Amino acid sequence: MTHSVIIFPEFSLENGSVLMDVPVAYKTWGKLNAAANNTIIVCHSLTSNCDVEDWWSPLIGPGKALDTDQYFILCANAMGSPYGTASPITLDPLTGNPYGVKFPIPTIRDTVNLHKKLLDEIGVQKIAFPVGGSMGGMQVLEWAFHEDFVHALVPISVGGRHSSWCIGWSEAQRQAIYRDPAWENGHYLLQKGPSDGLSVARMIAMISYRSFGSFNQKFGRNIQTENEEASFSVESYLRYQGHKLVERFDANCYVRLTESMDSHDISRNRGDYFQVLSEIKQPSLIIGIDTDILYPLEEQRELSSYMPNSTLEVLKSDHGHDGFLIETDAVNRTITEWRKKVVDPILISPRA
Amino acid sequence: MTHSVIIFPEFSLENGSVLMDVPVAYKTWGKLNAAANNTIIVCHSLTSNCDVEDWWSPLIGPGKALDTDQYFILCANAMGSPYGTASPITLDPLTGNPYGVKFPIPTIRDTVNLHKKLLDEIGVQKIAFPVGGSMGGMQVLEWAFHEDFVHALVPISVGGRHSSWCIGWSEAQRQAIYRDPAWENGHYLLQKGPSDGLSVARMIAMISYRSFGSFNQKFGRNIQTENEEASFSVESYLRYQGHKLVERFDANCYVRLTESMDSHDISRNRGDYFQVLSEIKQPSLIIGIDTDILYPLEEQRELSSYMPNSTLEVLKSDHGHDGFLIETDAVNRTITEWRKKVVDPILISPRA
Repeated sequence: MTHSVIIFPEFSLENGSVLMDVPVAYKTWGKLNAAANNTIIVCHSLTSNCDVEDWWSPLIGPGKALDTDQYFILCANAMGSPYGTASPITLDPLTGNPYGVKFPIPTIRDTVNLHKKLLDEIGVQKIAFPVGGSMGGMQVLEWAFHEDFVHALVPISVGGRHSSWCIGWSEAQRQAIYRDPAWENGHYLLQKGPSDGLSVARMIAMISYRSFGSFNQKFGRNIQTENEEASFSVESYLRYQGHKLVERFDANCYVRLTESMDSHDISRNRGDYFQVLSEIKQPSLIIGIDTDILYPLEEQRELSSYMPNSTLEVLKSDHGHDGFLIETDAVNRTITEWRKKVVDPILISPRA
Repeated sequence: MTHSVIIFPEFSLENGSVLMDVPVAYKTWGKLNAAANNTIIVCHSLTSNCDVEDWWSPLIGPGKALDTDQYFILCANAMGSPYGTASPITLDPLTGNPYGVKFPIPTIRDTVNLHKKLLDEIGVQKIAFPVGGSMGGMQVLEWAFHEDFVHALVPISVGGRHSSWCIGWSEAQRQAIYRDPAWENGHYLLQKGPSDGLSVARMIAMISYRSFGSFNQKFGRNIQTENEEASFSVESYLRYQGHKLVERFDANCYVRLTESMDSHDISRNRGDYFQVLSEIKQPSLIIGIDTDILYPLEEQRELSSYMPNSTLEVLKSDHGHDGFLIETDAVNRTITEWRKKVVDPILISPRA
């Protein structure tokens, strides 16, 4: 694995803003082949980052879905995320201070365009397929429109445009941040941010990622005693999750990333939504989870019924949306089988 | 309709606390018959109150499910709710100030026990059936244990004990309130409460009451412009809902009521949960909604498979949990048909 940061002198966003000295942090595994056509792009979700081994380790390695023997695996950090790519915590070269709330809203399309510059720089000629769930799945679908550059697609637990349902969840989380007095309209000092608001936002999100069944299995009506205060285990769990995110995330980044997801609409400036879906010609493996309340199966069914070369695989899981991060055996197997059938024969020369 | 408040000199809660001068606010429609056995108890949900005509008007009136010609309809405000029954905004007779955060956590069972005192006072000999959804449904199930006093039951969109899933939703909402500096550990002055926190709590709740499909139908990706700021319609909607609740609710009441719901467990001090369910002998109409994410159908299926004299009716609705307040025609029809078959023949003498 190599971890790198590349800095582009300039990058223009969809909304017209232009950023200077734009970093992109990324990690790679395996080797680019001579034809430079064996790249798998892994796209991360809201609060994770380009360290695929950290959150999807059972999928990466020799013989796995992300086969490091045959493929060049690359994961780059999304715009707006605090793990190295340009975001609100990046220093603005014009002022020497972090952009903070002045950082523009990056669309999912902006992130993909920025990552495309990175691949061009590295010399990638063609992507075998991009793969990712949730916010990562949005990037996968945007990659479809770099048509000749992308051989196939694996969007997981996502739809072609962010639903009002998901925007509602995003907004409740943002409001929890905005209503924290430490938010200061986004002009807080780093380390003095709205940690209470961010923590509540995370608690809301953690509910949305799971399901009735997964909480009941894990917690039931169990009681936990902490510092002599008894509370339901699920309450301690959520408070702990809120606390943990605050230690590793920034509120302006959280706001921008949720806005980025809300911007997701593959039909923006491309025409009628269903028509645009039907123009996605790449062979596509669409994965959905039966208990996902956030991006419910009907969204993946919609993708699959309009995308002409697609296959829908429904994962049975008790864990809701997070299933794509939890049911790693099933996800690994599903992607590997599809890859061997649809991608390997075309891109990978028979091994010696 | 009559609106009354009765004050009991004393009331003991499950947790051992004793309140003095305890008000119970209630409304009634129709007349108690000579046998005093024609009472229908309507149980309200979290933020509504005893004015059934306000939130369930298509169900109440001559010939309706809550037939005011034949039945005596009574709805009393729950303990902890700010609409007249004892709650954090009630004056503590010992201090002359509102109880505020010193108000004990009332269990659902406490509310039902308090309402039982009211019915005794009025001279009710037997309840035809209690009916209600959500928090109201919890009260309905607790009424089952006043065995000889209750002829039948109509619990809607509820389970027999609050799930960790629902407790998680409650806790995220309470944390939004607790993290508001105006919360002051509950010691705020009325009118100076944690309105931002309460508002965010309501936004979270409003998501839980609906569904992917209902939001998409209502809002899609529509944009709304307010004070020159454009935002998604669903965002304006949620902010407005948060704002509206703050005008009519109190944060300590909100906290106590959600804690009351979290306490809900019909098996508490009664034995094994499934055994306790199986001992509910009253004829019961259980209603569930197919898109309810908060109290999903599997909870009503559980009730129905253990409660020996029950019938399950599944309501098809796009609106999620709120379906019981929205699909009023279907709810009215379902209850009316069941009542005519199961309750009227026993309790109501043939009309002249």
